[in-house]
Amino acid sequence: MTEFQFDDHTLTANTIRGLAMDAVQKANSGHPGMPMGMADVATVLWSQFLRHNPKDPKWANRDRFVLSAGHGSMLIYSLLHLSGYDLPMAQLKQFRQWGSLTPGHPESHLTPGVETTTGPLGQGVANAVGFALAEAWLAAKYNRPGLPIVDHFTYAIAGDGDLMEGVSQEAASLAGHLGLGKLIVLYDDNHITIDGKTDVAFTEDVLARFAAYGWQTMRVDGHDAAAVQVAIEVARAEEKRPSLIACRTHIAYGSPNKQDTSKSHGSPLGDEEIRLTKAALGMPVDETFFVPGRVYEYMGGDGAAQAAWQELFAHYAAAHPEAATEFQQVMVGGLPEGWEASLPTFAPGSSPATRASSGKVLNAVAQAIPNLLGGSADLAGSNLTTLNGESFWQKGDFSGRNIHFGVREHGMGGIMNGMMLHGGVRAYGGTFLVFTDYMRPSMRLAALMELPAIYVMTHDSIGLGEDGPTHQPIEHVMSLRVMPNMMVFRPADANETAVGWQVALASSHTPTTLVLSRQGLPTLDPAVAAGAVRGAYVVSDADNFQAIVMATGSEVSLALNAQQQLAAEGIAVRVVSMPSWELFEQQSAEYKESVLPTAVSARVSVEAGTTIGWERYVGLRGKSIGLDRFGASAPAEVLFEKLGVTETAVVAAVKELV
Amino acid sequence: MTEFQFDDHTLTANTIRGLAMDAVQKANSGHPGMPMGMADVATVLWSQFLRHNPKDPKWANRDRFVLSAGHGSMLIYSLLHLSGYDLPMAQLKQFRQWGSLTPGHPESHLTPGVETTTGPLGQGVANAVGFALAEAWLAAKYNRPGLPIVDHFTYAIAGDGDLMEGVSQEAASLAGHLGLGKLIVLYDDNHITIDGKTDVAFTEDVLARFAAYGWQTMRVDGHDAAAVQVAIEVARAEEKRPSLIACRTHIAYGSPNKQDTSKSHGSPLGDEEIRLTKAALGMPVDETFFVPGRVYEYMGGDGAAQAAWQELFAHYAAAHPEAATEFQQVMVGGLPEGWEASLPTFAPGSSPATRASSGKVLNAVAQAIPNLLGGSADLAGSNLTTLNGESFWQKGDFSGRNIHFGVREHGMGGIMNGMMLHGGVRAYGGTFLVFTDYMRPSMRLAALMELPAIYVMTHDSIGLGEDGPTHQPIEHVMSLRVMPNMMVFRPADANETAVGWQVALASSHTPTTLVLSRQGLPTLDPAVAAGAVRGAYVVSDADNFQAIVMATGSEVSLALNAQQQLAAEGIAVRVVSMPSWELFEQQSAEYKESVLPTAVSARVSVEAGTTIGWERYVGLRGKSIGLDRFGASAPAEVLFEKLGVTETAVVAAVKELV
Repeated sequence: MTEFQFDDHTLTANTIRGLAMDAVQKANSGHPGMPMGMADVATVLWSQFLRHNPKDPKWANRDRFVLSAGHGSMLIYSLLHLSGYDLPMAQLKQFRQWGSLTPGHPESHLTPGVETTTGPLGQGVANAVGFALAEAWLAAKYNRPGLPIVDHFTYAIAGDGDLMEGVSQEAASLAGHLGLGKLIVLYDDNHITIDGKTDVAFTEDVLARFAAYGWQTMRVDGHDAAAVQVAIEVARAEEKRPSLIACRTHIAYGSPNKQDTSKSHGSPLGDEEIRLTKAALGMPVDETFFVPGRVYEYMGGDGAAQAAWQELFAHYAAAHPEAATEFQQVMVGGLPEGWEASLPTFAPGSSPATRASSGKVLNAVAQAIPNLLGGSADLAGSNLTTLNGESFWQKGDFSGRNIHFGVREHGMGGIMNGMMLHGGVRAYGGTFLVFTDYMRPSMRLAALMELPAIYVMTHDSIGLGEDGPTHQPIEHVMSLRVMPNMMVFRPADANETAVGWQVALASSHTPTTLVLSRQGLPTLDPAVAAGAVRGAYVVSDADNFQAIVMATGSEVSLALNAQQQLAAEGIAVRVVSMPSWELFEQQSAEYKESVLPTAVSARVSVEAGTTIGWERYVGLRGKSIGLDRFGASAPAEVLFEKLGVTETAVVAAVKELV
Repeated sequence: MTEFQFDDHTLTANTIRGLAMDAVQKANSGHPGMPMGMADVATVLWSQFLRHNPKDPKWANRDRFVLSAGHGSMLIYSLLHLSGYDLPMAQLKQFRQWGSLTPGHPESHLTPGVETTTGPLGQGVANAVGFALAEAWLAAKYNRPGLPIVDHFTYAIAGDGDLMEGVSQEAASLAGHLGLGKLIVLYDDNHITIDGKTDVAFTEDVLARFAAYGWQTMRVDGHDAAAVQVAIEVARAEEKRPSLIACRTHIAYGSPNKQDTSKSHGSPLGDEEIRLTKAALGMPVDETFFVPGRVYEYMGGDGAAQAAWQELFAHYAAAHPEAATEFQQVMVGGLPEGWEASLPTFAPGSSPATRASSGKVLNAVAQAIPNLLGGSADLAGSNLTTLNGESFWQKGDFSGRNIHFGVREHGMGGIMNGMMLHGGVRAYGGTFLVFTDYMRPSMRLAALMELPAIYVMTHDSIGLGEDGPTHQPIEHVMSLRVMPNMMVFRPADANETAVGWQVALASSHTPTTLVLSRQGLPTLDPAVAAGAVRGAYVVSDADNFQAIVMATGSEVSLALNAQQQLAAEGIAVRVVSMPSWELFEQQSAEYKESVLPTAVSARVSVEAGTTIGWERYVGLRGKSIGLDRFGASAPAEVLFEKLGVTETAVVAAVKELV
């Protein structure tokens, strides 16, 4: 057996370097340079600081670790493996292969110990802010004097790409504003990016920028373990500001020919260079996937921290049994028994905007769901996302449930993901529907990570009116429908809005986008609107109907008016309200056929958005009333008229078909 | 006639305040507070500095002015009107009405003198960086000693929302990196946002942040005209750094009850408050849309600056006739005569990736089109966007045509828009297709503004392979197809790729997204592939075909293989290559019928992305082979097999239908 003269730290860091080189080489694809460069920093963090339990990756009060620079996935897989998580060597050898637990970028729904899915840059930093915020709120809500059951750090490793991305900048600004002292970001300052040296495009003073956000900043040699250790200690000691530690590292550390070059960023080093590197590092050149036993010993996590916490929690539970039960419930993530009883129904007779109804439903269900919290990207008064009687989070006071995200839609999306991933909170966030474009990468990651986030998207069409085409969604509803695992729900009235919230809250593995109107919409009979839970239903039928008109949201009342007009002319039409394609597609073939009988080919859809896609339901011979152009600035009713989304258009389309 | 004791400046600023209040009140919708707060700053800028000619809004060397905080549109409409642009008072009175030139947010394709469409926050700042970059490149390319025909400033007014958005942060970082001394941003530091005071979410040190980016920063009282004037002079004198001037202003300045409150942000002040405000400002309370003649005199632009420039240009043209001709051509925006001759064709026999072919086409056409320039968001080696023999822009050297955008997709999109709006350059930008999500708001604005930007989007499907689902587009092609005025082109081979570039370059009012493969694809007969110019064409026919298989991009070769397999089993199939839905929809009904005859209802589509939308062509009885789930991390060929995008699947689908 090889004897090493290294200390445990160096042996571990070099072992990680070897695993990264070997796994990338075996896969013939991947990013070896980053894990090799950050091996020292990561080893210090995981061996000296990270409080976790590899045997229980979901322990509530564990420290959270985010690898924002997700392309360096072999770093976290190595750390997980060496620490004793359920990620055996066989998995490391299956890096980037079908069905393995070691995909090219870390995926939280797949691999034990991976806290978040990263790769799209900047997202991990925003997620980390979300983790720290969830911790702050849970601590404010559940901790009791002498019984800090929620008390952990959030660590993230970020690269230059992460820090160049706008999403990280938005989130970092909010983290500074809110003074998240338990957030520590380790910046892999390796001076190398895919296109070459970072200074070809990135010469700003990163530390000064973070200081401007209100962060504590430090700079260390990322290969000096002692210096890294001191820096992390200093960061942990700062309670009122998040910390950024710039770690000067060398990408592909140890590689004689590829260290400090972009060649090591996204390609295998090659067998010969790997041998040279192992020799230079003092590791056995002929071994692959080599792990000395001492490294397992050094890195292996035990359950001591969790055991101590469990003792604390036992005291807590004895002193505060109700809070303890609630804490356990919210951490598991379910909803309280009987929460549906809090869902309101609305009597016909008035015509509130669905955004207004949404605000009412939200406030009602928030009474029953103690960990439902969220806010808006500076449009709270328009999105109606504020919980009455709750305060807004501010530095040092996280007792409320309202969040001012600022004009930071993308940051909001990434932070919501982090909060949901942390566990213990159920997050919602709002803006205008058109601005889903600003946060789409985070929404996609919520869908991929199977997080039941709730997006409260208002001003959902040209019904927004005078603000004009920059603010009027056209393609947005359809562009969200085509995103895998995204539930889109566009309710027609107050009662369908309540169903939308019901569906969104009951979801456990799918995010939901609620698509809500600015303008008032007549309230349907709640017994009828309850059909919305199946995604599409007959909202108004007619004997021997000759045609089907299907509509969503604000266009359902328009379709119902057209139905009356057609009835007066002797044409019988069925009207189908279709708030959610996704839900409808989940129904049985029988149900679908009962709503849209194949025999009826005279079909018209009406939705104030793109018509592309509606052929799924109207077929090649049907007609779709909608908008395949941008909107315009004018009062809403003028726009519907001028742009041809009208009863007249629906009536004409039906007549043409029957 | 009223006599005013005010100086011209104050009278002008108060006149703007009156116009903003009156127009918003008349429209019963809009944002009066911002124009009222920034009236002093804007008056100083436009009266003392802005070099322009209201009679020729497209004068090549005018200063550019960007109202990034586009919700304050009445500010720019007032300025344009008072300066003598073709925006008569009747238009101001039609603010936010159908068909007017004064929409809710400024629209550059609509209103003379509006340089860019703003409203979605942060975009204007990125546009301004683009304007300044275009100026820097044109100056480097066309100026000659003593003959600076390109020499102007770019000014932008931005609010706190603009500066919170990630897109502005990305662009500002690049502007600092590149040392854009002629870029001057005036920050409306009014301490008020829609949700209340800015300090509820935004307490960072904005000036320190910009200083960290490498900007010159200043702070002035935004109601002290002399101080604003000095600050702008200092900013203009700084040649090596962009400047940020924080102007402390009071939103709704002059309003006794609404100044300094968020109530004045997005709502009319109300008739009574308007009267009170006019009284407080010393303006006639009973007049609406009131403009004293002195104000027109003070603000009215004459043609002197342009006349002087034209004299300079005459000297230039005499000394450098060829350069002068080229400069005039590029500023008009057309392409050089005969540029199509530079388009390469590719002989069958090899199988390059379409991204590789794209790189070859780009380099070929760039020889013929002198102002074609662009780059990648740190993926130049993957997107193959680099022009051989050209340098990359760096501080002080803009002579080349390559740009390192850094890991800043959204900033890239906004900057490209600004460059195109400036005129004189034809911009392209690349990243992985999946990261169009990061820049979607800018792409949408390019479509709305009718800018022929070119997006080089590579790694267009699960064919990307091991990087996994975070990097594999599924919904992206369809989500771009549903965007109005966006041309999407997904070529099947090298020759279709050349057609795609041809279409993109020939476009004058529509942006194009080129969707390119990572993996190799067999080259088609160029004579056949030329059919791609019609969006869809028969790439391989069969006598008495019983079914049609339509495919795009990498799936065309798969469809052709399936055709052969089916032919061997006696089933005749037509294969249609369909690189662009948008182009196909522009063809005549006859052509469309000739490609997809109505009589043939056995139709199969195959595209390695979402199937939603394909019903448009396959109908309710057709079948779509695609992916309605996220991808996975594995080698590409494994993914196609495991996820069922295969010849076998196409063959089975056809058999089921015929």
